[in-house]
Amino acid sequence: MNSQAIADSLRQLHLNIVKKTEETDGVSFRLDHWTRAEGGGGTTAVLQNGNIIEKGGIAFSHVHGFMPNKVADGLKIPQQQFHATGVSLIQHPHNPFVPIIHMNVRYFEMEDGTWWFGGGIDLTPHYPELETVKMFHTEIKAICDQFHPNFYTEFKPWADDYFFIEHRKEMRGVGGIFFDRLNAQHGLSKEQLFEFCLAIGNYFADVYPRLMLANYQRPFNEINKNWQLIRRGRYVEFNLVYDKGTQFGLQTDGRVESILMSLPTYASWVYDHHPEQGSAEHKALAFFQKGNDWVNR
Amino acid sequence: MNSQAIADSLRQLHLNIVKKTEETDGVSFRLDHWTRAEGGGGTTAVLQNGNIIEKGGIAFSHVHGFMPNKVADGLKIPQQQFHATGVSLIQHPHNPFVPIIHMNVRYFEMEDGTWWFGGGIDLTPHYPELETVKMFHTEIKAICDQFHPNFYTEFKPWADDYFFIEHRKEMRGVGGIFFDRLNAQHGLSKEQLFEFCLAIGNYFADVYPRLMLANYQRPFNEINKNWQLIRRGRYVEFNLVYDKGTQFGLQTDGRVESILMSLPTYASWVYDHHPEQGSAEHKALAFFQKGNDWVNR
Repeated sequence: MNSQAIADSLRQLHLNIVKKTEETDGVSFRLDHWTRAEGGGGTTAVLQNGNIIEKGGIAFSHVHGFMPNKVADGLKIPQQQFHATGVSLIQHPHNPFVPIIHMNVRYFEMEDGTWWFGGGIDLTPHYPELETVKMFHTEIKAICDQFHPNFYTEFKPWADDYFFIEHRKEMRGVGGIFFDRLNAQHGLSKEQLFEFCLAIGNYFADVYPRLMLANYQRPFNEINKNWQLIRRGRYVEFNLVYDKGTQFGLQTDGRVESILMSLPTYASWVYDHHPEQGSAEHKALAFFQKGNDWVNR
Repeated sequence: MNSQAIADSLRQLHLNIVKKTEETDGVSFRLDHWTRAEGGGGTTAVLQNGNIIEKGGIAFSHVHGFMPNKVADGLKIPQQQFHATGVSLIQHPHNPFVPIIHMNVRYFEMEDGTWWFGGGIDLTPHYPELETVKMFHTEIKAICDQFHPNFYTEFKPWADDYFFIEHRKEMRGVGGIFFDRLNAQHGLSKEQLFEFCLAIGNYFADVYPRLMLANYQRPFNEINKNWQLIRRGRYVEFNLVYDKGTQFGLQTDGRVESILMSLPTYASWVYDHHPEQGSAEHKALAFFQKGNDWVNR
């Protein structure tokens, strides 16, 4: 299975995800195709002011050529020919009771034969409900278990650590899974690992429409909206300060609009904001801590 | 002149600036005093939802003790006793025709006798007018010229480079001055350099009330408000991705609320936003480029 076959398959995944999200929202994504002078390109699908989604971005890219210096430095490897392909998405809904979601699967391959997969999916509800969080983690675990008994056990705490806003000492949401440099070390073939990535991608297209439809009509008040904007502010902090994909993109002169499509239409920062003890917002904070065993709660 | 005398004087500058801004806005700042376990502390003054200011922060700090490892690494010096004191402020007004402003002066001293001053002031209008930009730069140059004929010539391009959003290839505003590690290299005494810093601090208290009063009652429409929110989004990008003070604060476990008081109450990101040719917003973009000789325009 070569990088072109993987890229072709991810391009199809991208189209499927766009289609499924459009069907649920009712408004179409705008598709921007771009090319990279040094080789390759991509398609950025963006939905602004949909019925359910306020701002959503679903990106496919397949870039190749001789590795930029900064990439080689970042990966601590010699400069050489490379292929990188992936699908990455973030959805920011209007209604504060619909969670933000992020999903990413990616493949990297080098001239010297090295290759790996990376990716993850994580949920950022502003009013987390145990039932939903448990459902999300249980379903992800079921997918992981189909491929390797250790995947969920390894990738769930990895997400706890990765989607963590260090300076706030809190996660951006309730996590999910995160993995990187996944290759033969688990005894699975490249084909099997790719199937795992596709299963994660397809899981987004299954779970998020359910979460959208279940919550987008829920009534909300000004407190709920302000809390959503503040939590989106934390999301912005994570993406701009910690997210490796964003940093990599900005440092390597990637297409800025594709990289920063992850930022919400509106976000807010309130000085020294602390939800009242016992409020729904205060209860939410307990969900944003590491190490919760959601599957067995 | 020792660090305590400088800190005492900066504490007074802080109070003066808070008082002058309150007099202009009509609403009082909330003052939060904090202490640092390892030595020192500060006062963070924040105004939220004032008459003119939507969110403003004016911070004083004087911290000392044994230098944290990360600080020594960052400065590329051996760990030792240190003092750091400064005043730093950002004001985000309600009205899109009142510019955002930032000012910072700081002093750093080490056990081995090394010391320096740093700081700057820069203006971020969303609808820049040549007259105002020229006035701002001309007045800053006049202050610089009182101290050293090269200060403005050196510190103005330094601000162009510093307050630059590299991934956007644009400055966050129309600049001003920026300087760092300023010590005996210019032939001025420590006292003279400190007087220069105080003059910059006092200039804020002079110029910003003028800019507030001249513009806060100007009528604005939805296009103006959206443009302000988008430009504030760029300000957030600068502060979280590039600002050295913010990065330093977050990496050294500083008081998060004091560090991030610089972020606006509301900000916005619109995918692939380009103002229409000939619009006021489009004209503004030309002001956000480096190398404009505002004084002689």
